[in-house]
Amino acid sequence: MAKPLVGIIMGSDSDFPVMKDAVKILKDFHIDVEVSVISAHRTPDKAIEYAKEAENRGIRVLIAGAGKAAHLPGVLAAFTVLPVIGVPIKSSAFDGLDALFSIVQMPPGIPVATVAVDGAKNAGLLALEILAAADDTLKKKLKEYRNKMAQEVEEKDKKIKNEIEKL
Amino acid sequence: MAKPLVGIIMGSDSDFPVMKDAVKILKDFHIDVEVSVISAHRTPDKAIEYAKEAENRGIRVLIAGAGKAAHLPGVLAAFTVLPVIGVPIKSSAFDGLDALFSIVQMPPGIPVATVAVDGAKNAGLLALEILAAADDTLKKKLKEYRNKMAQEVEEKDKKIKNEIEKL
Amino acid sequence: MAKPLVGIIMGSDSDFPVMKDAVKILKDFHIDVEVSVISAHRTPDKAIEYAKEAENRGIRVLIAGAGKAAHLPGVLAAFTVLPVIGVPIKSSAFDGLDALFSIVQMPPGIPVATVAVDGAKNAGLLALEILAAADDTLKKKLKEYRNKMAQEVEEKDKKIKNEIEKL
Amino acid sequence: MAKPLVGIIMGSDSDFPVMKDAVKILKDFHIDVEVSVISAHRTPDKAIEYAKEAENRGIRVLIAGAGKAAHLPGVLAAFTVLPVIGVPIKSSAFDGLDALFSIVQMPPGIPVATVAVDGAKNAGLLALEILAAADDTLKKKLKEYRNKMAQEVEEKDKKIKNEIEKL
Amino acid sequence: MAKPLVGIIMGSDSDFPVMKDAVKILKDFHIDVEVSVISAHRTPDKAIEYAKEAENRGIRVLIAGAGKAAHLPGVLAAFTVLPVIGVPIKSSAFDGLDALFSIVQMPPGIPVATVAVDGAKNAGLLALEILAAADDTLKKKLKEYRNKMAQEVEEKDKKIKNEIEKL
Amino acid sequence: MAKPLVGIIMGSDSDFPVMKDAVKILKDFHIDVEVSVISAHRTPDKAIEYAKEAENRGIRVLIAGAGKAAHLPGVLAAFTVLPVIGVPIKSSAFDGLDALFSIVQMPPGIPVATVAVDGAKNAGLLALEILAAADDTLKKKLKEYRNKMAQEVEEKDKKIKNEIEKL
Amino acid sequence: MAKPLVGIIMGSDSDFPVMKDAVKILKDFHIDVEVSVISAHRTPDKAIEYAKEAENRGIRVLIAGAGKAAHLPGVLAAFTVLPVIGVPIKSSAFDGLDALFSIVQMPPGIPVATVAVDGAKNAGLLALEILAAADDTLKKKLKEYRNKMAQEVEEKDKKIKNEIEKL
Amino acid sequence: MAKPLVGIIMGSDSDFPVMKDAVKILKDFHIDVEVSVISAHRTPDKAIEYAKEAENRGIRVLIAGAGKAAHLPGVLAAFTVLPVIGVPIKSSAFDGLDALFSIVQMPPGIPVATVAVDGAKNAGLLALEILAAADDTLKKKLKEYRNKMAQEVEEKDKKIKNEIEKL
Repeated sequence: MAKPLVGIIMGSDSDFPVMKDAVKILKDFHIDVEVSVISAHRTPDKAIEYAKEAENRGIRVLIAGAGKAAHLPGVLAAFTVLPVIGVPIKSSAFDGLDALFSIVQMPPGIPVATVAVDGAKNAGLLALEILAAADDTLKKKLKEYRNKMAQEVEEKDKKIKNEIEKL
Repeated sequence: MAKPLVGIIMGSDSDFPVMKDAVKILKDFHIDVEVSVISAHRTPDKAIEYAKEAENRGIRVLIAGAGKAAHLPGVLAAFTVLPVIGVPIKSSAFDGLDALFSIVQMPPGIPVATVAVDGAKNAGLLALEILAAADDTLKKKLKEYRNKMAQEVEEKDKKIKNEIEKL
Repeated sequence: MAKPLVGIIMGSDSDFPVMKDAVKILKDFHIDVEVSVISAHRTPDKAIEYAKEAENRGIRVLIAGAGKAAHLPGVLAAFTVLPVIGVPIKSSAFDGLDALFSIVQMPPGIPVATVAVDGAKNAGLLALEILAAADDTLKKKLKEYRNKMAQEVEEKDKKIKNEIEKL
Repeated sequence: MAKPLVGIIMGSDSDFPVMKDAVKILKDFHIDVEVSVISAHRTPDKAIEYAKEAENRGIRVLIAGAGKAAHLPGVLAAFTVLPVIGVPIKSSAFDGLDALFSIVQMPPGIPVATVAVDGAKNAGLLALEILAAADDTLKKKLKEYRNKMAQEVEEKDKKIKNEIEKL
Repeated sequence: MAKPLVGIIMGSDSDFPVMKDAVKILKDFHIDVEVSVISAHRTPDKAIEYAKEAENRGIRVLIAGAGKAAHLPGVLAAFTVLPVIGVPIKSSAFDGLDALFSIVQMPPGIPVATVAVDGAKNAGLLALEILAAADDTLKKKLKEYRNKMAQEVEEKDKKIKNEIEKL
Repeated sequence: MAKPLVGIIMGSDSDFPVMKDAVKILKDFHIDVEVSVISAHRTPDKAIEYAKEAENRGIRVLIAGAGKAAHLPGVLAAFTVLPVIGVPIKSSAFDGLDALFSIVQMPPGIPVATVAVDGAKNAGLLALEILAAADDTLKKKLKEYRNKMAQEVEEKDKKIKNEIEKL
Repeated sequence: MAKPLVGIIMGSDSDFPVMKDAVKILKDFHIDVEVSVISAHRTPDKAIEYAKEAENRGIRVLIAGAGKAAHLPGVLAAFTVLPVIGVPIKSSAFDGLDALFSIVQMPPGIPVATVAVDGAKNAGLLALEILAAADDTLKKKLKEYRNKMAQEVEEKDKKIKNEIEKL
Repeated sequence: MAKPLVGIIMGSDSDFPVMKDAVKILKDFHIDVEVSVISAHRTPDKAIEYAKEAENRGIRVLIAGAGKAAHLPGVLAAFTVLPVIGVPIKSSAFDGLDALFSIVQMPPGIPVATVAVDGAKNAGLLALEILAAADDTLKKKLKEYRNKMAQEVEEKDKKIKNEIEKL
């Protein structure tokens, strides 16, 4: 079995409907991932151990999703020098602004690479860009993916132009 | 030397001008305190050890102040069942709203007792109320303090009434 | 009949679906509670009398939930030196930010221990931590509860790992 | 000595630089006012007594200014059916949004007539409009005041037109 | 037919589900009201004429509800010295914060008495308090209404206490 | 076939339910429009080419709708001196405040004429006003449209007055 | 003397330090402007008359700056079909968010072209783009201005590159 | 001369006092950087060319700082698959929340790794972590830097403990 390059961690299984977009995009690029539910507050020792051991197990990038006080990405980042990507997850109050502030406003010294609220797909793409920084084959695949996205927009453009004619 | 009952922790020495209000009010009530600079992100192992050992060392309440992503109170709370009081500290952006959200929006299971932005004095008073829950002498002192505050408001009332007459 | 140690007060019966989480967690720990609907604005005399008498009736901690202008926790706190825990309740406008501000931004002198918006469960746990500060048996139970929560996270971790394999 | 028709109350003497604008405008209209420093939290019994007795002493309108959690106007309103005008006062955090929410978001049943942050002058004018509702002489004076304001704007218009020519 | 004492104006008929709470409470107190749909932007001349003529037609208080940019209360206030009560109405974006700011942040000189977002019932009660300022019979009725509200809270208190016993 | 005077661009076909209000109002005024789905991020070269060529193809005004980071209107504006009208589109987080800030807060030098969140109809009307600035016939039609809107408000006024009588 | 094409209106002379950026940029392009201080609330009749007469006096675009409740641009827009550009002006509370909401969130039917908080320069440039829509000479000047801005950025680039070498 | 691995771009030279923290930390780690002032709106062609050519010139990570509408990081990201780190820069209005939203809320497909408002130092550290993902020597240096930071916190802890003794 292949060794995972990206570790995806979420604070609760209720975050999975959002976080699976990160899993999917990485699988589409044939990157092995490891997915875990670890809470910074309810299983703090495990969170710390995970962050400390990730590098040794061959993990190159961490993606952590969390809602509300959302300490998970920052807590992991405190225990590793691997890049940590944080995904603020929208919960019932404050539209995810609480999670965004808790993840992005890290103090000098310990960065977290923050993406949009519920932006798990972009977290996966950012992990791919980080892996691609030293991998020209992956860079090429990312460019092909960009072309595919552009074509999809072109198709939507045609679809709307058709709808307009019918108005 | 007396054993401290309250541990006051801040993420940076730049938080001290705010946090010293908590120290002062506790000293006014002759409660021994222990003051530390511990960063949840830059000295995470120490933060965890501190939280784990606090109870054994006789600490009964923790007060933690932090700004921006402000994970410190929550990280401490994850490692102790002592009550943790969180003080959001105003920094240059967002008026302390980032710190408030990061401290107050804790997930179910691990509470942090949050006070106002820069509300270190109230953090100290809340610690006193918690200690007083099992200490009638301290409760009486808190009531005397309330009376003193009421008298100060009365004096301000007189002062303003004098100023009004001169208008 | 046992004397209640914790008084739970809410401004309206419409707050009960949120506030019952505080009742439940305290009952799970076999702590007797007293639950009341008292409005700071519509039954202000009763609110004041309640706060003034709570200590004498053996109450050790108050938990007050309120939405919108949410004065209830602060009004109670003004009339007692017992620790008052405030639960901001989300209403239709402002996602509970109005209630959070009204509860947490108390002026120096009168603290309210604020928890997350709709965070009644954590309010109950914070009350337990306050009671446990002078009760080692309760502290032990809180630690067991923490272990149980950690096990639940472990089970969610297994569940998600299974789902991932099926993707 | 004349009996005051308007009671102006503030939570702290630090609110006076803002609140004196209400005093001034009422004095300009020769309305007797009574100015008090009463804290909803530090002198709560006095606040309640004040609100309960105001009507009997001939007061017709209350103006209450407060910052941060800003419960004062709502607490007064709970104990009187006189119109209560609330002035949210800007403090160091949140630009007065906390005070605005705490004052304006009153629950159904107990209204507070809220004006702008630091809007004490308009609080005074609103009190005058309320008094004028049953007083045609005062209504006429308010109309003259409006005319005077319009003339001041005209003069500013001339001033700016002169400045423009020099550009 | 009786002459209306209170004019209730809204910017659109879509505001009526909110604004009818003001109508109802005034009718409950047997106060004649006049209800109009007038847009500050789409029928501006009518809005101005309405405000200018209201006093002459015997209107004593205006209540204006509006959402989004919500200029209606301020535009009316610019053309009358009658007290104008503004009701910010929640629309799909910004939870009514846009309307609240547009109504409450009036410049010095022209006040609008602002109530909570969607707070039409309190707008009606505030109008009653203003009318009652010169009407002891109405004041008495308002006090009876307060007593009735207190009794309703008492009943809710009993209901919840019953539910708790069943938990 | 007529040459379109207004180009309407949106970042995704999911924006069409909002943006079609701009199409409709322009069609009601018999102004030819051109509707495109172009993403500032996924088809950036096309966005730039579109903006650069629009003027030469006879386009006089651009209307661009976008949600979230919402760079589209600003990116188009950077490549043309035609007036660009920006429509912030509400998405699941932040109520469209993110899009509003991204569109309206353009740096000095490159303006975007911003309308309300989801305000596509007003974007169309603003385009009409801009075209009308040099076209008296269109100005006249806009005035007739204003009259029609006023009549619709009058009808709503009657409808509500009828409903009130039945209350 | 030339007839002004652009009318610049502000609610108070205290807005002039911001609004003069609009005057300057228009004068740089040799467009005649007319500058007025007119308050939507303190001189409402004049505001309405101004808006109604502007078109007849040859004005083609209005620029209105206002702070706080900031009704001025919307009130003018209600009385003219000329394009109205709104400049939200930052005041002491809410960083201009109140003015932004009051200006940009106009209801369907009456648009205001909103620019950034304190964005008077862009208001001027937007007015120029609107005038240029039917004036190729002005379009050419706007393109030259864009080139000049680009050169200024190039010079800043060189300056920073020099500073970096010295680091 | 060494080939730069990191490109640092800012929209204006006024952003340099913030952005130089990124330059400094990278220089401390002996990583060659290239610093440019390029505006997404005033020099858009140059921004696009820069992003398109960066990879070929050996650049591995981009850091882009911008304030207000802050499109620069997203515009660059649209033209390269290199990781782009965005630094929201605080400007006079909205505390940098506008820039944060414009940078972090990127649509699916084009990620920007966002750091705190004015968080240029963390942007530099994140670039180092990305470079270190394929460079064990750099990883080791980052760990040494973490140790140094921990020691600095320890020294601050001693300093505060000394100050406390003197209280």
